[in-house]
Amino acid sequence: MTEAESISPFGKARSTVKGNPLSDDEVEKYNDFFKASCYLALGMIYLQKNPLLREPLQKDHLKGRLLGHFGSTPGQSFAWMHFNRVIRKYDLDAYFVSGPGHGAPAVLAQSYLEGVYSEVYPDKSQDIEGLQKFFKHFSFPGGIGSHATPETPGSIHEGGELGYSISHAFGSVFDHPNLIALTIVGDGEAETGPLATAWHSTKFLNPITDGAVLPVLHLNGYKINNPTILSRISHKELEQLFVGYGWEPYFVEGDDINTMHQAMAATFEHCVKQITEYQKQARDSGKAFRPRWPMVILRTPKGWTGPRKVDDNYLAGFWRSHQVPITDPATNPEHLKILEEWMRSYEPDRLFDEEGRPRVHQDELCPVGNRRMSANPVANGGLIKKPLRMPDFRDYAIKIESTGATRDGSMKNMAVFLRDMMKMNMHNFRLFGPDETESNKLGGIYEAGKKVWMGEYFEEDSNGGNLAMEGRVMEMLSEHTCEGWLEGYILSGRHGLLNSYEPFIHVIDSMVNQHCKWIEKCLEIEWRAKIASLNILLTGLCWSQSHNGFTHQDPGFLDVVVNKSPEVVRIYLPPDGNCLLSVMDHCLRSNNYVNVVIADKQDHLQYLDMNSAIEHCTKGIGIWPQFSTDAGQEPDVVMASCGDVPTRESLAAVDLLLEHFPELKVRFVNCVDLFKLIHPSDHAHGLSDTEWVSLFTADKPIIFNFHSYPWLVHRLTYKRPGSINIHVRGYKEKGNIDTPLELAIRNASDRFSLAIAAIDRMPHLKNRGSWARQALLNAQIQALNTAHETGLDSQDITQWTWKRNGRLWHGNGRNGA
Amino acid sequence: MTEAESISPFGKARSTVKGNPLSDDEVEKYNDFFKASCYLALGMIYLQKNPLLREPLQKDHLKGRLLGHFGSTPGQSFAWMHFNRVIRKYDLDAYFVSGPGHGAPAVLAQSYLEGVYSEVYPDKSQDIEGLQKFFKHFSFPGGIGSHATPETPGSIHEGGELGYSISHAFGSVFDHPNLIALTIVGDGEAETGPLATAWHSTKFLNPITDGAVLPVLHLNGYKINNPTILSRISHKELEQLFVGYGWEPYFVEGDDINTMHQAMAATFEHCVKQITEYQKQARDSGKAFRPRWPMVILRTPKGWTGPRKVDDNYLAGFWRSHQVPITDPATNPEHLKILEEWMRSYEPDRLFDEEGRPRVHQDELCPVGNRRMSANPVANGGLIKKPLRMPDFRDYAIKIESTGATRDGSMKNMAVFLRDMMKMNMHNFRLFGPDETESNKLGGIYEAGKKVWMGEYFEEDSNGGNLAMEGRVMEMLSEHTCEGWLEGYILSGRHGLLNSYEPFIHVIDSMVNQHCKWIEKCLEIEWRAKIASLNILLTGLCWSQSHNGFTHQDPGFLDVVVNKSPEVVRIYLPPDGNCLLSVMDHCLRSNNYVNVVIADKQDHLQYLDMNSAIEHCTKGIGIWPQFSTDAGQEPDVVMASCGDVPTRESLAAVDLLLEHFPELKVRFVNCVDLFKLIHPSDHAHGLSDTEWVSLFTADKPIIFNFHSYPWLVHRLTYKRPGSINIHVRGYKEKGNIDTPLELAIRNASDRFSLAIAAIDRMPHLKNRGSWARQALLNAQIQALNTAHETGLDSQDITQWTWKRNGRLWHGNGRNGA
Repeated sequence: MTEAESISPFGKARSTVKGNPLSDDEVEKYNDFFKASCYLALGMIYLQKNPLLREPLQKDHLKGRLLGHFGSTPGQSFAWMHFNRVIRKYDLDAYFVSGPGHGAPAVLAQSYLEGVYSEVYPDKSQDIEGLQKFFKHFSFPGGIGSHATPETPGSIHEGGELGYSISHAFGSVFDHPNLIALTIVGDGEAETGPLATAWHSTKFLNPITDGAVLPVLHLNGYKINNPTILSRISHKELEQLFVGYGWEPYFVEGDDINTMHQAMAATFEHCVKQITEYQKQARDSGKAFRPRWPMVILRTPKGWTGPRKVDDNYLAGFWRSHQVPITDPATNPEHLKILEEWMRSYEPDRLFDEEGRPRVHQDELCPVGNRRMSANPVANGGLIKKPLRMPDFRDYAIKIESTGATRDGSMKNMAVFLRDMMKMNMHNFRLFGPDETESNKLGGIYEAGKKVWMGEYFEEDSNGGNLAMEGRVMEMLSEHTCEGWLEGYILSGRHGLLNSYEPFIHVIDSMVNQHCKWIEKCLEIEWRAKIASLNILLTGLCWSQSHNGFTHQDPGFLDVVVNKSPEVVRIYLPPDGNCLLSVMDHCLRSNNYVNVVIADKQDHLQYLDMNSAIEHCTKGIGIWPQFSTDAGQEPDVVMASCGDVPTRESLAAVDLLLEHFPELKVRFVNCVDLFKLIHPSDHAHGLSDTEWVSLFTADKPIIFNFHSYPWLVHRLTYKRPGSINIHVRGYKEKGNIDTPLELAIRNASDRFSLAIAAIDRMPHLKNRGSWARQALLNAQIQALNTAHETGLDSQDITQWTWKRNGRLWHGNGRNGA
Repeated sequence: MTEAESISPFGKARSTVKGNPLSDDEVEKYNDFFKASCYLALGMIYLQKNPLLREPLQKDHLKGRLLGHFGSTPGQSFAWMHFNRVIRKYDLDAYFVSGPGHGAPAVLAQSYLEGVYSEVYPDKSQDIEGLQKFFKHFSFPGGIGSHATPETPGSIHEGGELGYSISHAFGSVFDHPNLIALTIVGDGEAETGPLATAWHSTKFLNPITDGAVLPVLHLNGYKINNPTILSRISHKELEQLFVGYGWEPYFVEGDDINTMHQAMAATFEHCVKQITEYQKQARDSGKAFRPRWPMVILRTPKGWTGPRKVDDNYLAGFWRSHQVPITDPATNPEHLKILEEWMRSYEPDRLFDEEGRPRVHQDELCPVGNRRMSANPVANGGLIKKPLRMPDFRDYAIKIESTGATRDGSMKNMAVFLRDMMKMNMHNFRLFGPDETESNKLGGIYEAGKKVWMGEYFEEDSNGGNLAMEGRVMEMLSEHTCEGWLEGYILSGRHGLLNSYEPFIHVIDSMVNQHCKWIEKCLEIEWRAKIASLNILLTGLCWSQSHNGFTHQDPGFLDVVVNKSPEVVRIYLPPDGNCLLSVMDHCLRSNNYVNVVIADKQDHLQYLDMNSAIEHCTKGIGIWPQFSTDAGQEPDVVMASCGDVPTRESLAAVDLLLEHFPELKVRFVNCVDLFKLIHPSDHAHGLSDTEWVSLFTADKPIIFNFHSYPWLVHRLTYKRPGSINIHVRGYKEKGNIDTPLELAIRNASDRFSLAIAAIDRMPHLKNRGSWARQALLNAQIQALNTAHETGLDSQDITQWTWKRNGRLWHGNGRNGA
């Protein structure tokens, strides 16, 4: 056999597992089921009338615009229906992840045939009328999507953007010891980076406490317009690749239907037995290990069961069958005829009864109730979600000896709260992060749950390795995999938190994007129960990157997040440790949001005692009278901050201003909840304009020091009264290997620059302003020189605290904290 | 041998290639070189004085803040110095890609030892004074980075964000048939998705026309705080993984230095011979093929040559040696002593002469001139870059029969221009894209260069496969790999263009981000010559996704790009085909930018003849008098657009307005160059405020229809006179399976909504306004009903053209086109 022959998708079944478990009668029945599945897929793509071809096919039966993808449908349906057999035989708890793009026709056909679709959507009933609607509404405005969208029963994985099927599947089976995620991986999808590394997830799956993923790599052969890599390498390379990834690949290859039924049935049975044996071995012995988990490599022609050629052009087994396989039946009568013949080859007359009900031995072939994969509650995770048991975050308060003078590590402190919370939710919560948990000062959590590790162990691991097979923290140097696991974990009804360096969170911009779209769409779907929020904690911030330099400076993830639907995104920048606790408690309890929390991991000044922190975080934004001198009157200037590093610099700027102008009426405003800034018509959290003016005034200069790129604040506040007076400082893409001060100065967001900005906007200070300005500039240069000489910021900078006693402004209660 | 023993990094060398090619004397010499390399790395991390330990080490010799990473340094230095041997022996043209994070101490040490660093930076001379500066400035404010930053001679790959070493390396060797990229891949980096799929790049490398990548997977064992996956799987799995990826892995494992020298020397020699034999075979025969290219798997202890334990804690061979290996020598005298002994074990007294010059047999061990890897001009690609030969884009003009009434495919037309350009630059330009080139209507380019494919071929490939081993178009379903290849290609002196669907370009947000930072930093470096721009063409736009649905709608890439330095980013949204030609010609000729061009792939109305298009694109923004009725006077309303879909809707809105109010003075403004909108203090392209007012007025309502999220326009224009009057429409994250009209209506950016928005802002229209408003609403609902019933937008919508004859406003020349 030549190499090309050995990797051909055509011919009698060639399979690793031998045997013919099906009787001839059973083969016939599977054939009927398969035909009906393929028929439904074509119907969805083409028909708006005459759904069972009870009349000769006419062009007005066709939809006005043909949309949909046939290519991967037969293979996916084939896998689904054969897995039903083992579900029935072994009473498995399983669901289906459809990785290939536009695989919905397969998923929908199976859900329709097993009856779930009509139960969920009664107008798509199992009769001619329902079938006609089912066909017509597919890929139709406002209708049924061509991916496994949130509207699809049994789906947690839309597959619009490719690459996440395996990480989603693993996320869903962690801590679900009896669950099997049958996961179809497209060979196009398999070329993406996120998918290519997600195969390593087996090094993080514990056969005692976790379920199993059974991947079916579908070598469909083609993408939109190109062959796929994995379908065009030698058989040996392909096999070794997956052995290398840690899997035991079982091949099922060919297009001869009867032998393929036997091969698929035998293979799935073998795989499921192997999975359950490994699980039993580990569970009986209490000793976890990493087996070579089974996987299936299913090689079938793209557009399988379709015509090999139309006119002189290859169709089945070629990229032309990717989307609408015959594109012009409405205008080409010959093609209409070919289409009709093709559709009739699936015998709709025989396989649907008089009323249009499918009659394809469902009673014998499909599981019942929630054992049907499209009815598995795990894919509507909110249904099975249990709320987190939460310790009282107030018990973890940082004691504030003196506001703005106490220094402590907000993140390190919060780690203790997370540790105790984890202890109370040992099978319901996991922490995820790309190898940065310890660096992010969250290592304290390892006391409750170490890092999951199913690779080999070395002697030195006991010396601070914090590894355990039964761990609870998931660390792999792939933001994609961590995020995919977390998504799968919460979509299937649990809770979690991702911690990551801020600069590289852009790596998963697109994944977060897609998750936002998923949960937004879920809000419109009655039967979808709300899942836990996707919580993202960003640290390793832009402002203190030191030698990591310019590549580690990008606070722009927020610019991506703010564009998502206001119903699903929340952004918090707690200024200190007690606010971080309050915010994190809130996020962990919330549902259906993407919460982004930004907090520095270094030691920081602490400002608010726990009660004030709760009040402040509840309001989301507020005046800090203890750092203000306007005593409830109109201020000369509003100094505002958002983010912990910016808050420190803003306060130090107030200190500098008051040193030069003791009588100045300064108002200090801090924002925790970023969406407070936006107009309430654009986000539910937005302040009313009246509230806005009561904080910021309508006409006074506002020096707003922001954690991220400054323009984001303008984008949020352009509608506000007095928006012209807002002067925002933030990161402006100026950086190098810098001390924190130097970096802030480059971006004009340091204390000196902020104080100068305020002076420049108060012309009434006149000459005194010029004098102070010059003094501040001198001090700035002096501080910079120290940094350049020593490599360190001066103690004046790093040890600065707010030394003015107590509360400056004994507020009138209107805004007082 | 147990599994753990077989994958231990300790012990005598174990290697696939046997042999002892080095004499004992040579081993001694390599040992000296290696010691000096390691010494330099430690010196960089620790010392600001006493660089050669000519005095006993005191804490004031240490830097005030210890920053830097030792972990991967010895292994990287080891690989570099041994590759020098084969460079010398076979006169190779090679350079070095340092994949692991923070690998700069190795790269810098080698560059210093081979003399290049001192040539480029004379103050870092090869003497005590220079050495002291070299040490002190490493990881010091404003000094030398801890990655292979642009300041590093010989680097095209910074390695700050992990995952791109292999794709960068491949990009650099395409069309450089004699080049070898010695590429160190960190085992942490290897866990990232982008890296995991980039191994497949061999399926796109032609041994006749391209050079070779020799990867050294460095199994350093640990990341920041975790073991690495690839260092903790069985030997067999590891080997099979890389055979499966298509490589021939050669192992070199151990920590015994003398035997490791022999093993490394023998292995590199074997690999280089294999590479050159494969190349010779293909080139002599004229028949390209895909060999199993050699790669090296180098397993050494992290922090190799450092102490195994300090106190009771593992250091070398454990994660503790990742960064600063001994953290407290300044405060712990015993640790200071250990550090000193460690450093002295590298024998600085013997290996540096009286003046401080390294004396480690460089004459015998290092190549000379540009054969030194840190001096290879390919890593300063601008030096060897040749400008593209360009056909005259004017020759490809779309003929405009009637402005706003001619319909044509802008993208399809531009493909012809690209095809001809490619023909003129067959070894200097490539087109990249993730399997979407044909879908994006650029398939015409295959006439000049097919798709590179080194996988197996099937019979049907000749039926529209467009595959060729000698192809010029690079398509793999990995945006990461395509982008990485393109970056490597242009960084090494060539030109290219990436085409991609708009919604999934977020997948590479972070890569583009890092490239922007690289080229911005290069502007500050005298010796870096400018490279060609990174050109990104986005199509498959948000506005016409049909059944792809909500997941395929995200125009937010621009929000990421605008935050980058104004010196390096350019964004163009050509409204029609001739503008697209003009813009693309400009981008392809430009240097050192990231150019983002957004244009729809569907047929579109065409507006400007070629001369007008050139004038319009040169200005970047302008009034279109042919669609305006203000005749150079103050308008009642300014209708503005940016993007081709929005422009069509805005013009149709003008049509609707004029239907209802024939006397209305409408001014139509179109923006091609997005940065025209921003204040000139923030971007060189920004209009002055005077120019702004001459286009937009200071007080008239502006209805701005934007391609992307509307808030971006506010972020750009908040400083503008009359900014309060700008009302922006765009994508607001409202979507489903929609017809284009329906999607536009959801987001209030359709013609009806735009006309209504204009009416609402012209109170002087009074009752006539209310009446027209109602009529427009009715028409909108009617159009929507048609879409819902038929699945298609009505012909009134899709076939709409600008029917008002000729030029409406015979301008006074001030703004006339």
